[in-house]
Amino acid sequence: MLFEDRVLYPEFRARMVSADEAAALIAPGDRVGMSGFTGAGYPKAVPGALARRMQAAHARGEDFRIGLWTGASTAPELDGVLAQAHGINMRMPYQSDPSCRKQINAGDMQYMDIHLSHVAPFVWFGFFGKLDVAVVEVAGVLPDGRLVPSSSVGNNKTWLDQADKVILEVNQWQPAELDGMHDIYYGTDLPPHRVPIPLVQPHDRIGEPYLRVDPEKVVAVVSTHHPDRNSVFNAPDECSQRIAGHIVDFLQQEVALGRMPRELLPLQSGVGNIANAVLAGLDAGPFKHLSAYTEVLQDGMLAMLKSGTLDSASATALSLSPAAMERFLADIDFYRQRIVLRPQEISNHPEVIRRLGLIAMNAMIEADIYGNVNSTHLMGSAIMNGIGGSGDFARNAYLSIFMTPSLAKGGAISCIVPMVSHVDHTEHDVQILVTEQGLADLRGKSPTQRAELVIEHCAHPDFRPQLRDYVERAKANPVGRHTPHLLGEALSWHQRFVQTGSMRG
Amino acid sequence: MLFEDRVLYPEFRARMVSADEAAALIAPGDRVGMSGFTGAGYPKAVPGALARRMQAAHARGEDFRIGLWTGASTAPELDGVLAQAHGINMRMPYQSDPSCRKQINAGDMQYMDIHLSHVAPFVWFGFFGKLDVAVVEVAGVLPDGRLVPSSSVGNNKTWLDQADKVILEVNQWQPAELDGMHDIYYGTDLPPHRVPIPLVQPHDRIGEPYLRVDPEKVVAVVSTHHPDRNSVFNAPDECSQRIAGHIVDFLQQEVALGRMPRELLPLQSGVGNIANAVLAGLDAGPFKHLSAYTEVLQDGMLAMLKSGTLDSASATALSLSPAAMERFLADIDFYRQRIVLRPQEISNHPEVIRRLGLIAMNAMIEADIYGNVNSTHLMGSAIMNGIGGSGDFARNAYLSIFMTPSLAKGGAISCIVPMVSHVDHTEHDVQILVTEQGLADLRGKSPTQRAELVIEHCAHPDFRPQLRDYVERAKANPVGRHTPHLLGEALSWHQRFVQTGSMRG
Repeated sequence: MLFEDRVLYPEFRARMVSADEAAALIAPGDRVGMSGFTGAGYPKAVPGALARRMQAAHARGEDFRIGLWTGASTAPELDGVLAQAHGINMRMPYQSDPSCRKQINAGDMQYMDIHLSHVAPFVWFGFFGKLDVAVVEVAGVLPDGRLVPSSSVGNNKTWLDQADKVILEVNQWQPAELDGMHDIYYGTDLPPHRVPIPLVQPHDRIGEPYLRVDPEKVVAVVSTHHPDRNSVFNAPDECSQRIAGHIVDFLQQEVALGRMPRELLPLQSGVGNIANAVLAGLDAGPFKHLSAYTEVLQDGMLAMLKSGTLDSASATALSLSPAAMERFLADIDFYRQRIVLRPQEISNHPEVIRRLGLIAMNAMIEADIYGNVNSTHLMGSAIMNGIGGSGDFARNAYLSIFMTPSLAKGGAISCIVPMVSHVDHTEHDVQILVTEQGLADLRGKSPTQRAELVIEHCAHPDFRPQLRDYVERAKANPVGRHTPHLLGEALSWHQRFVQTGSMRG
Repeated sequence: MLFEDRVLYPEFRARMVSADEAAALIAPGDRVGMSGFTGAGYPKAVPGALARRMQAAHARGEDFRIGLWTGASTAPELDGVLAQAHGINMRMPYQSDPSCRKQINAGDMQYMDIHLSHVAPFVWFGFFGKLDVAVVEVAGVLPDGRLVPSSSVGNNKTWLDQADKVILEVNQWQPAELDGMHDIYYGTDLPPHRVPIPLVQPHDRIGEPYLRVDPEKVVAVVSTHHPDRNSVFNAPDECSQRIAGHIVDFLQQEVALGRMPRELLPLQSGVGNIANAVLAGLDAGPFKHLSAYTEVLQDGMLAMLKSGTLDSASATALSLSPAAMERFLADIDFYRQRIVLRPQEISNHPEVIRRLGLIAMNAMIEADIYGNVNSTHLMGSAIMNGIGGSGDFARNAYLSIFMTPSLAKGGAISCIVPMVSHVDHTEHDVQILVTEQGLADLRGKSPTQRAELVIEHCAHPDFRPQLRDYVERAKANPVGRHTPHLLGEALSWHQRFVQTGSMRG
C-alpha cells in the first residue's frame, strides 16, 4: 500500500517531508506532546531525527532539550533515543525506558508522575503551560482531513487540539483495518460547563471513529513503515499461576456470596507478565461473557475474546506480542467488533470507572502490613516506571486488587514490609492483596486486623516471624496502637537491603 | 410544638416509646448505623440509653459491644457515651471524639478509616456485612410516612434502606422549617446497572426533599428536644489570616492568568478554625457570586451567603455555632433557597466532584517536602480523627489545596517534614501547599523541584536549614535522586519528638 492510499487529503500529501525536515520544526525548550501508550502507536521516525539534531547541537555546545509528554510508556525509538541524546528536561506522565529511568534517578531528567486521568484535563486547564508541538502517529488520513488513529489513542486528541504545530507520522505498518475500532469522545469541556459522560456499558460508543485536527496546524507529514514495540511475554510461571488461582477462587467466592453477578463486573488489568498470567487463569476458569474496561489490551485479553470468556474489551492501547499481533491481524474483523479504543481521559475517567464498578487488578512493587501500596519507587528514592492508571482504577473500582510475588531479588527482598518506602495507594484505597502465598481480604478491617491477614496470608513464610515480631513490639509502643509502628525500624528493612543486599535479618 | 404535630403518620405515633425501650431493641454484636455528620443531626437519646444498658451488662460480666457506623463525627451524646461504656468494637468511618480516639489508640476499639464516598456503596455491596439496626434523627414525619431529614443527611438514606430494624428519633429542637432544604437522590443502583448522576451545577436538585422508609421496619419512635453539638469557632488568628491571604492572592492570580472564571469554581472547604478563617478571608476579598459544593456548611459559608459572596451552597450537614444557628433561624427562608443538603454519597461523589471542577481546601496534620500529605496520624501510629472526605475532594478537584500552620506544639513540631509519618494524600494528589509562611504551587513539578518550593515557601524559617541539609545529603545518596531520601533519617524528626518533645535538632 502506498503513502497516497493512506493519505487521502490532498493538502497533507503536499506537506510530506522527511523525518529530518519535520524534526527541524521542533525548537529547543519546546513542550512536545507525542503519541504512544505502552509501546503502541508512538511516532517511529521523528524522535530519532530529533535526537540526532540534539546531539549535533550538544556537540556545538548548545543546549537542546524538550519537555516530553506522551500517553504512557513508548519504546527505544522514542524515549530511548531522546534520553540517550540527553534531550529531555521534563518527562510526563509514565515511562518505562531504561535510559530515561537512569537519567531520572541520576537527577539529570525531571519527571512528573501523575495519574493518567489527570494528564489531558490538566493540559486543557493550562497547568503545565502551552503545548508547542504535537507528533502523532496515525494509520491514515480521510479525504476530509480527519485522522484514522493508530494502535493507541492515549492523549492524541488533546495533543492535536492543544498544540500550535502538528507533525503527523502515517505508519503504513499499522493495519488499515484499524479504521472503525476507535471511539473518540468530543463531549468534554472545561468546568463549569461539564456534563455527564454518557457511557454506561464498557463497549458503548459515545464518540466518533476519527481524530479531528485543524489542517492549518499540520506543518509536516512523515511516512513510516515500522512495527510497534511488541514485547514478548514470558509464559506464566508457577508463582504467577498461583496468584491467578487465588484471584479466581476469590471471585468465585464473591459470586457465591451474591456480591457479584455470574458474569462478574468489568475487568481492569494492569500490564506485564503477572497481569497476563492472571488473565490466562481467568480464561481457564469457569467465567463466561465477561467484559473489560481497561487501559491496555494485551495478549491475555485477546485470547479471552477469542475463547468467548470475554464478550468485549475497551482500552486506550493495543499492545500485543508479535505472535498475538499475527492472530489479531488474521482475524481483525472479529476483533474490531469486540474492541473499542478510547482517549485515555475516558478509559481512565473516575466517573466512568466508578459507574461501571470495575474489578481492578494491578501489580505492585511492595505492600506494607497495614495495606499501603508502593507502585513506583525502589528503596524510597529511585523511580521504577510510574503510577500510570493504577490510582484511577484502584480508588474508583468495585474491587481493588493488588498483586506481587512475595519475594524479589531471589529472596533477598520481601515484598511485604513493615512500612512501604513510598506510598502510591493509601490504606484507604486497597481492598485485596495477593501473593503466591495467598490472598488477604482487607475490607472492613482495622489496621491491626489487616496486619494479621497480610502477614499470615501474603508474606513469605521466611519473613513472617520478623513481621510478627515487628507488630508485637510496635503494639507495645505507647505512641499509638491504631497503626502500630516503630519509627526507628519502620524503614530498616529497606536500609538493610541497601547496605547488605538483603532484607533478611 | 407537640410530638403529634411533628409525627403526622398515625402508625408511627403508635410506636412511640422511651429511649430505654428503644435501646432494648439493640442486641450485643449488632451493626448499628446511626445518623450524624460533624455534630449535626445525630440521635440524642437512644445512644445514652444504650450506653446504660451496656454498662449494666458489663457489670454483670456480659459482653455488650456494637459495630457503630455513622455519617461522620457526632458528639459526646453518641460517640462519647458509647465509648465510655466500652460499647464499640468497630467504628467507621470518621470520628473526632476524645474517648473514641483514646480507645482506638489504646488498641481497645477497632477503627476503619475509609473515604466518605465509599461508605454507602460498600454497605450496599455487602462488604461490611448486614446492617442490623438504624438509629436516625429526623425533624418530622409526613402523613404518608416519609421523613423530614434533620440538620444532616449523611448516610441516613443508606441506613434506612439497609437496616433490618429502624429506630427514629424525632427531635423537636430541629427547626420545622428545614422541610424542603434537602435533596435525596434515589437514582443510585448497583453495577452493572448504574447511570450518570444528573447533577451539573452545585445547586441542582436531582431528588426529593424526603427520606423514604419501609414503615414495617420502624420498630420504635422516640421524641427528643435537644440541640445539636454546635461548637464555637475561634476568631481567626493572625496565622489563619495569613494562610487565607495567600490563598486569596493565589486565586486572584489564577483568574488573572485566565485559568479560572471571575466567579471562580465551586468551593469545597474542610472543617475547623483554619478553614473557617479562609472562608472569612474569601468573604472579605474581591470575589462575588461564588458557589460551594462541600460536605459541611459551617459559620463561614453562612456569612458568605448572607453577604452575597456566595450565591448557593450544597452540603450534607449544617454544622453551625450557637450564634450562627441563631442567625440561620432568624432568616431561614433566605437560607432555604440557597442551601441544599444531600446524602454524602452525592456530596462526596468523585463523578460529581470531577465534573464540577472544585477548588478543594483542606487542613492537614503535616506535609513532606515532596508533597505527600498526612491528614490522620500523629507520629505515624496514633489516629487523630480520620480522612473524612478529603481524599474524595483532593483527588478529583480542579485545584487541590492543603493548609496548615508551619509549626505546632508551640514550635516543637515542624509541619513540614522530610517524610510524612503516614500518607493519606500522595504526591500524585497534592497541588498546592499553604502555611502562614507562603504558598507552594507544585503543579508541573518533579519531586526535587517540589522540595525546593515547599522548603522555601512553606516551612518555618527555623526548620529550613535542617530541611535543606536533608535534601542536599539525600541527593548525594546514590540509591536514587528522583525522590532523594535518607531512609535512616526520613522519620527521625518524628522519633526525636517522641523521645525529646521537640523536632528541633
